[in-house]
Amino acid sequence: MSTIRPRPGLEGCEPYGAPELEVPVRLNVNENPYPPSEAVVAGIAAAVAGAAAGANRYPDRDFPALRTALADYLAVESGVRLPPERIWAANGSNEVMLHILQAFGGPGRPCLSFAPTYSMYPEYARDTLTPFVTERRSDDFTLGSPDSDDPGQGIQGITEAVRAHRPAVIIVASPNNPTGTALPTHQLRALLDAARGSGPVDLEGRPCDALVVVDEAYGEFRRPGVPSALELLEDNPHLVVTRTMSKAFGMAGLRLGYMAAGTSVVEALRVVRLPYHLSALTQAAALAALGHREELMAQVASLRAERDELVTWLRSRGLTAHDSDANFVLFGPFADRDAVWRDLLDDGVLIRVVGPPGYLRVSVGTPEETARFRAALTRTLSSPEHTTAQEALA
Amino acid sequence: MSTIRPRPGLEGCEPYGAPELEVPVRLNVNENPYPPSEAVVAGIAAAVAGAAAGANRYPDRDFPALRTALADYLAVESGVRLPPERIWAANGSNEVMLHILQAFGGPGRPCLSFAPTYSMYPEYARDTLTPFVTERRSDDFTLGSPDSDDPGQGIQGITEAVRAHRPAVIIVASPNNPTGTALPTHQLRALLDAARGSGPVDLEGRPCDALVVVDEAYGEFRRPGVPSALELLEDNPHLVVTRTMSKAFGMAGLRLGYMAAGTSVVEALRVVRLPYHLSALTQAAALAALGHREELMAQVASLRAERDELVTWLRSRGLTAHDSDANFVLFGPFADRDAVWRDLLDDGVLIRVVGPPGYLRVSVGTPEETARFRAALTRTLSSPEHTTAQEALA
Repeated sequence: MSTIRPRPGLEGCEPYGAPELEVPVRLNVNENPYPPSEAVVAGIAAAVAGAAAGANRYPDRDFPALRTALADYLAVESGVRLPPERIWAANGSNEVMLHILQAFGGPGRPCLSFAPTYSMYPEYARDTLTPFVTERRSDDFTLGSPDSDDPGQGIQGITEAVRAHRPAVIIVASPNNPTGTALPTHQLRALLDAARGSGPVDLEGRPCDALVVVDEAYGEFRRPGVPSALELLEDNPHLVVTRTMSKAFGMAGLRLGYMAAGTSVVEALRVVRLPYHLSALTQAAALAALGHREELMAQVASLRAERDELVTWLRSRGLTAHDSDANFVLFGPFADRDAVWRDLLDDGVLIRVVGPPGYLRVSVGTPEETARFRAALTRTLSSPEHTTAQEALA
Repeated sequence: MSTIRPRPGLEGCEPYGAPELEVPVRLNVNENPYPPSEAVVAGIAAAVAGAAAGANRYPDRDFPALRTALADYLAVESGVRLPPERIWAANGSNEVMLHILQAFGGPGRPCLSFAPTYSMYPEYARDTLTPFVTERRSDDFTLGSPDSDDPGQGIQGITEAVRAHRPAVIIVASPNNPTGTALPTHQLRALLDAARGSGPVDLEGRPCDALVVVDEAYGEFRRPGVPSALELLEDNPHLVVTRTMSKAFGMAGLRLGYMAAGTSVVEALRVVRLPYHLSALTQAAALAALGHREELMAQVASLRAERDELVTWLRSRGLTAHDSDANFVLFGPFADRDAVWRDLLDDGVLIRVVGPPGYLRVSVGTPEETARFRAALTRTLSSPEHTTAQEALA
């Protein structure tokens, strides 16, 4: 009889992931509903054929061409131009996060985040043996305002929390998942100020800065006038801004996440990355996709408009729907959100049970998909038990 | 002035990797010298085009089709048939190793290996905060024989070492890198026996088995009659056998490593893997390549013959060249191996400085590449200073 056991801390843990179900309308993992055009597919296939012709060789470990193309893209998207040495990429922004916590987290070096937020953060921490601590966001899902009356909230509360935890890494999603909330620049500046000298002490006993990671996975969907944290990089060497090609860019299947930061952060990640972590095919396909950026980004404006209409419609049904700078909307409350989720699934519409109790998250789909969601939700809300459930909460 | 510091333990660490130099003959990282045929490239491009057409969606998290194809391949290659549930894959076998140490290693759970061996193992351990300990291999680079006269060697010594370290994970490369040595089955059996009950104690204080990982990255190059550790899986639920498509399969650029093990090991890795770690393009390309397995494996026999001739030739030059079951040969000794390495590089031939002091490793190339290596080495050895250096060691 053989006995093998995973390390302590993993007992009873389940693999992370939303249910993978074959349904007509999938609005559960914030994918871009628009598949790439034939021209994009052909471009990727040609680039991959070129890479495959030399696939007996290892890929370039440091992928300078791809980093240059990502820097160019960021310059166009946000107006912030960075040298390729300040860009890093991996198989999804979740691998970028893993690299960050492998290099800067670890035992005795906490990661601080602000809940409710993306449910993978504690898993990245767990898998790098990094203590994970949270403070709560304000009722508006931001970090609070300077004049908040709630003593546990607001910038002052945030500053005190950061100094109390002495985190090595602070991760803050903006726009936040699952709430859709983008943080105002003054809050990000306050967080960056609080992080200075508030990290762990170094080997000589001097306090270091906490690394502040702003997760902009949904950054391209922010509303007009909402700035990107990329604009703060110049003044803040302890800032990391992560991005992904999975969402606005419509390339979730490619698995390409990236970040912009100071070169000292990039150099630290190069130590912990596995050699050749980005395949030659991934590098070639990402480069080809970036070459079609205008076309791939064309749907972002219509998805934003569709999202804003969805918020308006949900509110017109008497529901709370939070303002969103992402490609999804958090709405509720429901006395039994699981029952609503199942009703929608029975109608062929898959959304996500996530976020504050009673709430559900729906991704913005095509107009046809959103119409099916609206019809299904209307049916669900009109059934006697759900009317009662709503009233019970009112 | 901002100060950020990576975690303790990473100070002064450099990114791992052989020099990436543009030279005519690259025999430094044990790549397959034969690029894929036009048919294989076309097959991959077509498969990737299919995947790219749906790339706005996330890939299948558990890639059952690819696991089935890998199981089929192993059955053909080794005669051992396993269900797909016993297969796991990642972006290179180095990511498989990371998953293994994330799930089974960690603080207080040592990883034991036998030196000289693959120089990445301590880095996997470092990046998962796993203590790394080594015992030394016998003079023939195996784990020793039962009748060894050296009390620190042989099966008895191995058994004692395993029991003393109580490792959570034992990694043993067979064929070994950089020596080329395949371990005899009786040594692997002895190691597996020693590992039973010799791992860390569980939460109830009961001793568990150490997980034994046999790294068969070069498995397909083993000489006729040398078995694969896959044959031992049936009797040993604490055995993991890792493989890769990078070497014999000639797909280093694809980054596809995999393993065979018991389902309880696979289930533990599913907990620590990042969701969607294998892109839709990687899954499609690997499946397409596996469909051409006869063609991609066709060069293995000729590479084996080329290797054996190279060993004979090196010995005929008065050098020590170790028997190899891989696609490379370890040879020497040289008083100044760095000088020999530079001389060869000046002649356009890139090999690797690695392994025991005084030794160098050369990958088996095409007949033309091997001829250029032989010519360059002949020139180097005939220069006055190297003759002297050789004699100085004699």
